[in-house]
Amino acid sequence: MADEAPFQFLHSELIQYIYKSADTEDTENGRNISKLENLGCRVGQGLIERLTKDAPRFKDELDIMKFICKDFWTCLFKKQIDNLRTNHQGIYVLQDSQFRLLSHLSAGKQYLDYAPKYLAFTCGLVRGALSNLGLRSVVTAEISDMPACKFQVLIQKM
Amino acid sequence: MADEAPFQFLHSELIQYIYKSADTEDTENGRNISKLENLGCRVGQGLIERLTKDAPRFKDELDIMKFICKDFWTCLFKKQIDNLRTNHQGIYVLQDSQFRLLSHLSAGKQYLDYAPKYLAFTCGLVRGALSNLGLRSVVTAEISDMPACKFQVLIQKM
Repeated sequence: MADEAPFQFLHSELIQYIYKSADTEDTENGRNISKLENLGCRVGQGLIERLTKDAPRFKDELDIMKFICKDFWTCLFKKQIDNLRTNHQGIYVLQDSQFRLLSHLSAGKQYLDYAPKYLAFTCGLVRGALSNLGLRSVVTAEISDMPACKFQVLIQKM
Repeated sequence: MADEAPFQFLHSELIQYIYKSADTEDTENGRNISKLENLGCRVGQGLIERLTKDAPRFKDELDIMKFICKDFWTCLFKKQIDNLRTNHQGIYVLQDSQFRLLSHLSAGKQYLDYAPKYLAFTCGLVRGALSNLGLRSVVTAEISDMPACKFQVLIQKM
């Protein structure tokens, strides 16, 4: 039985709720995206605290990113990130070839315009998790072919 | 690893988001409860559709309630309802002696006043699930000793 279903349905309803309660569509879109991103950030912070409670100390930045790709992603989406790449200078690209929060939209390019609002929350999740592990970051997402998508993480040097 | 954690954290943040975006606390409380209840209702509708996709047809009302107490509750909270009682005339009392969405509040009577907002979403979940199975209902919740709580379901005859 789909274990992540309650989370997925709640995520969809949250998006609808936030978009519905906004006054006008065009001007509010940016603000809605940032509301979703912030909500995701706080969920990510809570979640990573729970997940790392008994984890050993991380060796370095790459070690943290691997934890995000494996344990953190599995807890949320019951699968790991399929591909992690880095330039070893603070940029990481996490590729999920079957991203769960997009899987209810049809594959292909048809609904590409609607996709950003389904990714904002997850960008926040990653940013929140990293921030609680001591890394300040900017996280953006990019879709080329649904339901595959890429998250780009840019670690900010402090 | 806690499978239901993403759902629990998202649920908490949703409550905070809805309460924070309301203007004034006192007048808005009823409206916030009903927003949460409605969101829960739509999540419950989606979820029950997914869960009953391959389930055999239900024999009667009691059979539906048992499904809610077992499969539906387990999918959401990784545990079953501990006790189901009925007067066989459309009233059902579902008792959860360790309700997950209250478990982050301290046990005892200390935070009893805050509890209703943590139950509204779940009342909606049950109402939504029942409505998609053809039963119109009113669902209320009652707490005597946290984190134990009771959901009362009153089936409306059509």
